Order: sequence, then structure tokens, then C-alpha cells
Amino acid sequence: MRILFKDANILNVKDGTLSLGNVITCGNTIEYVGTSSFGEFDEVIDCNKNIVMPGFVDAHCHSPMSILRGTGDDTALDEWLYNYMIPLENKLTPDDIYWGEKLAVLEYLASGITTVEECYFENEKILQALSQSGLRARVGFGPSTRKVSGDLQTYLKTQLSLFEKYDSSLLKPCVYIHAIYSTTQEDIEKSVDFSAKHNLPMSIHLSETLDEVGNCTVQNGGLTPPQYLESLGFFDRQTLCYHCVHMDKDDLQILSDYDASICTCPSSNVKLASGIAPVYAMQNKGINIAIGTDGPASNNSLDMFKEMFLVATLSKVAISDASVVKASEVLKMATLNGAKALGFDSGEIAKGKKADIIVVDIHNPHMHPHDNLVSNLVYSAKSSDVKLTMVDGKILYRDGKYTNEDVEQIYKKVDEIKKRLKNEH
Amino acid sequence: MRILFKDANILNVKDGTLSLGNVITCGNTIEYVGTSSFGEFDEVIDCNKNIVMPGFVDAHCHSPMSILRGTGDDTALDEWLYNYMIPLENKLTPDDIYWGEKLAVLEYLASGITTVEECYFENEKILQALSQSGLRARVGFGPSTRKVSGDLQTYLKTQLSLFEKYDSSLLKPCVYIHAIYSTTQEDIEKSVDFSAKHNLPMSIHLSETLDEVGNCTVQNGGLTPPQYLESLGFFDRQTLCYHCVHMDKDDLQILSDYDASICTCPSSNVKLASGIAPVYAMQNKGINIAIGTDGPASNNSLDMFKEMFLVATLSKVAISDASVVKASEVLKMATLNGAKALGFDSGEIAKGKKADIIVVDIHNPHMHPHDNLVSNLVYSAKSSDVKLTMVDGKILYRDGKYTNEDVEQIYKKVDEIKKRLKNEH
Repeated sequence: MRILFKDANILNVKDGTLSLGNVITCGNTIEYVGTSSFGEFDEVIDCNKNIVMPGFVDAHCHSPMSILRGTGDDTALDEWLYNYMIPLENKLTPDDIYWGEKLAVLEYLASGITTVEECYFENEKILQALSQSGLRARVGFGPSTRKVSGDLQTYLKTQLSLFEKYDSSLLKPCVYIHAIYSTTQEDIEKSVDFSAKHNLPMSIHLSETLDEVGNCTVQNGGLTPPQYLESLGFFDRQTLCYHCVHMDKDDLQILSDYDASICTCPSSNVKLASGIAPVYAMQNKGINIAIGTDGPASNNSLDMFKEMFLVATLSKVAISDASVVKASEVLKMATLNGAKALGFDSGEIAKGKKADIIVVDIHNPHMHPHDNLVSNLVYSAKSSDVKLTMVDGKILYRDGKYTNEDVEQIYKKVDEIKKRLKNEH
Repeated sequence: MRILFKDANILNVKDGTLSLGNVITCGNTIEYVGTSSFGEFDEVIDCNKNIVMPGFVDAHCHSPMSILRGTGDDTALDEWLYNYMIPLENKLTPDDIYWGEKLAVLEYLASGITTVEECYFENEKILQALSQSGLRARVGFGPSTRKVSGDLQTYLKTQLSLFEKYDSSLLKPCVYIHAIYSTTQEDIEKSVDFSAKHNLPMSIHLSETLDEVGNCTVQNGGLTPPQYLESLGFFDRQTLCYHCVHMDKDDLQILSDYDASICTCPSSNVKLASGIAPVYAMQNKGINIAIGTDGPASNNSLDMFKEMFLVATLSKVAISDASVVKASEVLKMATLNGAKALGFDSGEIAKGKKADIIVVDIHNPHMHPHDNLVSNLVYSAKSSDVKLTMVDGKILYRDGKYTNEDVEQIYKKVDEIKKRLKNEH
């Protein structure tokens, strides 16, 4: 398949500029970006000066929690987690998780998210749903809030073997430790060993709340969460740390020294009252910052436009300076930095990159006038402006329609699951 | 015209509940809310269980700044204001302002905003555009950043007389003082006198930034902005104060004692790094809190869904408590409280109220599951979910189409204006 995106405002996320031109994809790759066009095309998409940009990389999500959207909202964090989330999650069957993942997929594609980092349970079902979807994803497994049955080592091996039947350019594994507070030191060490042995990257929730930081320092001889993880060799691996809300400059220096990536999740952090992440300080340490939605039960949507607005504006208000964390920087975080954090060769509209592309409509009232479209993308655009979502050269969503998904069936299944959970609760 | 909204999830903003039923409008009024239907209808709108709720009241905006959307973004507040906004605003002709207002109207209607409080210059043009639009609005005039030519008293009289040719149930006047720092004490006093003489409500930007508070106390013998205004008799009038970001409990007590309303504008406050308003403290003082978008150049969109999300979540993170400022409370702020602040008999779906109604689609991935739709409205819904906007019994927007507005002409005019401004700048 050779496809021409014609007459587009092409976003270069590396320098935050737009230029009018054409993009050609061939198979799963971007073949050409420029003002010409050549050869035969299977399809010509007239972009009508709409923005063509890389799809968003949602670098942290627990997608099947879409099933729990709106549950326990407006309660304190502990109540939300221990009275709502964990009891309900314990009732979720593998099939529930499959349908929850599929509901999330609908939202991902409609809002221009082409790649996700997925951390949940029942990865067999998650991989199945993701594989059907055509999304690009990194899927984590490891010690989490749901107790591993049997020996951790065996569990990790079994989990890794699940990936064998899927296209490794689209679905990749990583070793995911839920958090310091939910995992023993022994299990962290075993996970790091496993990651080293199989050359796998690692992810973890880190310094998300003040409680986490306080408890860690008390329980580990004054070590902050990054210091504690450093002492266990965690950062010797290629790592992605979610949240990082409560980190001082010494903590950030550790992450910087080891080339760790951070995924900031502003919606979740403000909705659960965790805090505002020090994104400007992270930038100043040269850390690769990606953006994530976190789960749909703590957000409550999978919308990278909302996250971009929040990253830019919360960073400004946190240090009383409206000039920091600029729109162009945030666009790079939401795309290229995310791809880098997850180890995918995508995240920009450039020759040779994987064809993960979205078309964003600019012919809407809130996108006018058009003289600063980079700014409009971060401060004015809505996820409903996404007209088309392509992953790996395949168009998966266009003008409200999905290529691979049966929307009504998914809604029906989710309704049935919710009805059953309500009766059980 | 008698219209039936059939089979709807009807939102009661007073108690934050939804109930399945029908809404009947007759002329510009809500005639019936309940499970029956009776009589003849000019139109039956099958709501298909979508949410029927009052339209949003955007209680603070400078709409024609839509022309300046994306201008001076990511610069410090002073630079934004003095190097970008004010020089450009000085170049805006009355016609530019007319087209800016019309661009904003498109966004209002598409995102379910049925009522606005408008504060800008060239009210003749603004009233003309608003009158054509069919929106409900309160329009302010008084001493502002653009110098009044001639005597203030005469200016105020002339401004008030502009309203004579418009339907006073839709377009109402108020005396608007831009801010303490941009107005002399004499002009504040003259404005208060005029307001008292003509029985008009008053509005002002108040305690928006720390600079404003600091300068006011230095220049006025230690008086904070609310204390200073109290000393000038401002609060003896019916008042609406925008922003109120930097107020301690004594300041809030003054507003509470005088039954002043507050309009909080969270997007603008975080984007311009002004701060996070103490909304929970305002609630505890029993103050009527409305929500506003502020101008499209400091936001950068007119989207009350975004503002609702921010009011709820910023209030939580500001005091580290995820249980405060609940979704149901925020929905009331965005509708009924706004109508109360502006003095309109609208803002709820109840018999006898003005028929300002919107239909919000729930058949979207991000609105599933449906078991907590009140929460979904605040934390998950997008302005693109608005399918229909009715003001004063008239359908002004439905499924992407406007009844009164020529979208392409507005875009064309805005493009021309921007081109001219660019050449002049």
C-alpha cells in the first residue's frame, strides 16, 4: 500500500514547525516528506491544509480500567484505591479485561493515540485485544497489586512467552514493577535480574505521592524512592518511571545520570490530588519526558490533547512563569519522546520512520485563526479534531469509523459487565 | 413552537441527579419536565437517552479576542499583555471586533454555551453580533484598558443607551470596571454611582495576580483589593468578581457578607501562571461560584467542559484532597450559579425556566460505561459531545450546523483581519 497525504500542514515535532507539503507512506513506513509527489498511489488523502502529525504515544495507561470509569470519583485517594478500585479489580475476569481493553482502543484511535504502554493484569487477553486493534504497544508484566500465583521467576517466564505469537514490531514486552510500596525488595531484585537476563526494559510508578516518598525514606534508611531503586540496580536497566511528582533535584539527577525516561500524567495527578510534577526541572536535567493518561478510572479519559494542555499550563502555574514548558516542547513529549521512552522507531513525520500518523482538522471555530497552529494544537485543539488515525501504515480510524472494531458489540459487552459487577458489589 | 425532548437523561443541577424522561419547551420557556408527554409538538427530538441539561453559562469572557488566539503564547504575563495583547487590541477596528465576536459565537454554540458575560470594547458591534446569534448575554461597559474618550459619565450613558434597541430578556447591561490597577479611584466611584442610579449590576477583575494584590495594598494603606473596593461602596451593588485567585479568608468573608458572586477561570489562571483559585474555601464561605473561560487569547478555547474538569481537579490538588469540589457541584457552578450571577432566569431544566438547553451525546467511547454520567460529564465529556444547543427556546446549533451563522464567511473575514494585523504589526 502506497498512500499520499496531500496538501497537509506537516508538523515537525523536533523543531516545532509546520510546513505545507505531502507525506507518502509505503507499507508500514514513511517514504517521503516534502513538497513533491511521485509514483502510483493506492489512495490519495486530500488533507485540505489539515495538520498531519505523528500519532500520540500514551506512555502510561491501565486501559481495561475503562470498565471502572466514573467509579469512586470525588473520594480521597485511599478510599478510591482500597474501597473501590482494588475490590472491583479483583472481580474482573480475563474476559472483562479483554472488553475493557477494547473499549479503550476505541478511545485511543478516535483521539489520535497510536501507541500505548499498557500495565495491567491478564496480559493474554490484553495482547489479544491489542493485536486485533492494530495499535503499537509496549505491555508490562511483573509484580503488581494483584498477587502473582506461584514463583515470580516462573511467572515472568510465562508472561514473556505470551509475546511469541505476536508481531514484535507492534507489541513489545517490558518488565513492570507496580511500585516500591506494593513490591518486596526481593521481588524488585528478581525483576531486575530477569530484565537483565532477557534484555528487557523496565517500568515503575515512582514518587507518585508524598506518602510513597515518606514511607520509602522511613522504611529504607532515609533513601528516597529513586535512591532506593538505584541501590537495587534498577536504573542499570533501560527504565521508564511513571508520575515522578515528588522529586527534588537530587532525585532527578539520578534519573538523568542513568538516562531514565519519565512519563508525566497530569490529569491523574490533579484528579487524585497527588500533586503537580516538576516538569520544568526535569527539562533542565535533560531527562526524556513522555506523557501518559494513566488509567481511565483516574483521569477519566484517554485524551492526549487534555494531557498536553495540562503539562504546559500546570508547569507554568507551578513556578509562576507563563513562559516555561512551551507548546512545541509539549508536542514533542507527547510523540517523539514517548516513542523513544518505549523504544519504537516512530513519533515523527520523517523519512524511514514507522507510519504512525494522524490528521487533525483545523477547519473548526476553536482552531481559527491559523497563524499559530502549534499553539492551537496544545491550547485549543480537542481530540474530536482527529479525522484519521494510521498505525504502521494502516488506517484504523477515519471520520468516526473504525476499520477493525465493532463498536456496538463492545458497548453491549461493557454494559453487561457493569451490570454483573453491580450485582456482585 | 412546542418542542419535545423525548427519552432523555435529564440532569437536575440542583441535586446532581439524572432521571430518564421528557422535557417540553413552549416558546422560550420550559413547560414540563417528567415522564409523560401531552399535546401537539412542532418537533419531537428523540434524545436516545442522551443527556439533556441546561446550557453552560460562561460568566467571564472577552470574546473578540478569538482574533488573537495563539498570539504571544508561552511568554511571561507582562510580555503577553504589554507586548502582544494591548498593542494588537489598539489596532482592532469596530468591524474586527464584530467578526471576532462572531467567531466566538460559533465556538460557544458548538460547545453548549448558551449564555455569556461579555467584557470588551465597541459594544455597539458586540451587541449587534450577539443579537444576530440568539445567545443570552450580559454585556459590560465602563472604565477599561482602552481609555474612554471624554467624560466617563457621558460615556456610561451613551453605552447604556446602546441596549435600547435589543430584547432585554436576552441582552442585559452591566457596569464593568476592568480592574483596580487600570482604573482611578475617582472612576471607580463614578461607576458605582452610575450603577446605583440606574440599578445596574457590576463586574470587575479582582485579585487575579499576586502583583495586583501587592500593589493594591502598597498603594491603598494596606487594603487588599476586596477591602479597597468595600471602602468605595462597590459591594453595595450586585457584583460579580472575576478570578479571585489570591484571596485569604478575610477577603472571601467580605464577598460572602455582601452576597457577591465569583467567577473562577481556571484555564486562564494556569496558562498565564496567575495561580490556583481557592474554590473550596469559597464554597465554605457560601459564595455563589460561577465559571468562566476568560478570553480565547488566554485560554485558548471557549470550552466549559475543560473549565469544569479544571475547577474540580485543581481544587483537589491545591489542598491535597481528592474528595473536595465534586462533579455535581461543578456542574451547578457551570450552569445555575452562572445564571444567578448574571441575573438570568435560566441555568436549570425546570418548569417555568427559560429554555436554554443542550443535548450531550453519551454514545461515545469516552462516555462509557454509563453508570456515573454526572461524573462523566465533568471528567470525561468533551465539548464535541454537544449535539444540540437551544437558547430561549430556539435551536441555534445542531449536529455541526448553525441556524443563524455563516461559518465560511466568518472564517474568511477573520483570515483577512489577521492578514491585515500581521502587515501592521
